[in-house]
Amino acid sequence: MNHFDPKFDLTFERIVEVPKELIWKAWTTPEHLMPWFCPLPWKTIRCEIDLCPGGRFRTVMQSPEGKEFPGDGCYLEVIQNEKLTWTNALLPGFRPAPPQAGGSVDFHFTATIQLATHGTGTHYTATVIHGNEADRDTHDRMGFQEGWGKALDQLVEYAKKM
Amino acid sequence: MNHFDPKFDLTFERIVEVPKELIWKAWTTPEHLMPWFCPLPWKTIRCEIDLCPGGRFRTVMQSPEGKEFPGDGCYLEVIQNEKLTWTNALLPGFRPAPPQAGGSVDFHFTATIQLATHGTGTHYTATVIHGNEADRDTHDRMGFQEGWGKALDQLVEYAKKM
Repeated sequence: MNHFDPKFDLTFERIVEVPKELIWKAWTTPEHLMPWFCPLPWKTIRCEIDLCPGGRFRTVMQSPEGKEFPGDGCYLEVIQNEKLTWTNALLPGFRPAPPQAGGSVDFHFTATIQLATHGTGTHYTATVIHGNEADRDTHDRMGFQEGWGKALDQLVEYAKKM
Repeated sequence: MNHFDPKFDLTFERIVEVPKELIWKAWTTPEHLMPWFCPLPWKTIRCEIDLCPGGRFRTVMQSPEGKEFPGDGCYLEVIQNEKLTWTNALLPGFRPAPPQAGGSVDFHFTATIQLATHGTGTHYTATVIHGNEADRDTHDRMGFQEGWGKALDQLVEYAKKM
């Protein structure tokens, strides 16, 4: 159901040497998400996950200066070990979110992580779709590629020790 | 996953003498939705349904003066004959919608129709949730109770002839 449009959307993909079941676990369990979720020296200090469509996905990131950036939203698609979609345009229970998202970003997006077995590892694809070009460009300038790349590096390092 | 809050939300329920399978069909098939969907003398002149999470639910209503009011959004939950949830906060493919919904309403909402067998008929519940009190109050003043009541009357009359 995802209609990728390069003017509005961003995508990131990579082959990693970790089985998809571990990546799934790292994305869907608070204790296994917090260690890698945002690029150091930022930290993820809280995480709440209710893993079902309409269920809450909430994180709080902390800057090196100690400022907190909450992000709240809900899951839309939960297909174990394969596909995870969530948005900050809807709050838990599918309630419409305020127009300004607040927290770590001030725009709405819907993100999808797709996982496919590739040899002994995983073909990992992250896609983030937006409502307009301006939001896409803002997200791009915030360092989408570098940020999601660093987070994935951290995920892989963490998963190898899981 | 619906957390009803009377300050933010509106609900409407009624027992009707039509089996839930017919009500489901009337809500999920364009040809069977258009005849009853908006209270006469308004008309529903177009309808597009892709019945799956992320799939489009689009209608165009026409006022008695001939003005057109499009409404676009996507489904979130599709549980046959039981529960149908959609929102105008996300467009097809779960893409975030513009902050001003445009079309027939200028706010975001998520709506759920729930159907349960009641004797030979159906216990019908419609719930519409909003992001804030102002949107709920606007929707209420637009005549939510009366509008959804009239539409349900029209649905029941139509379904009896299906």
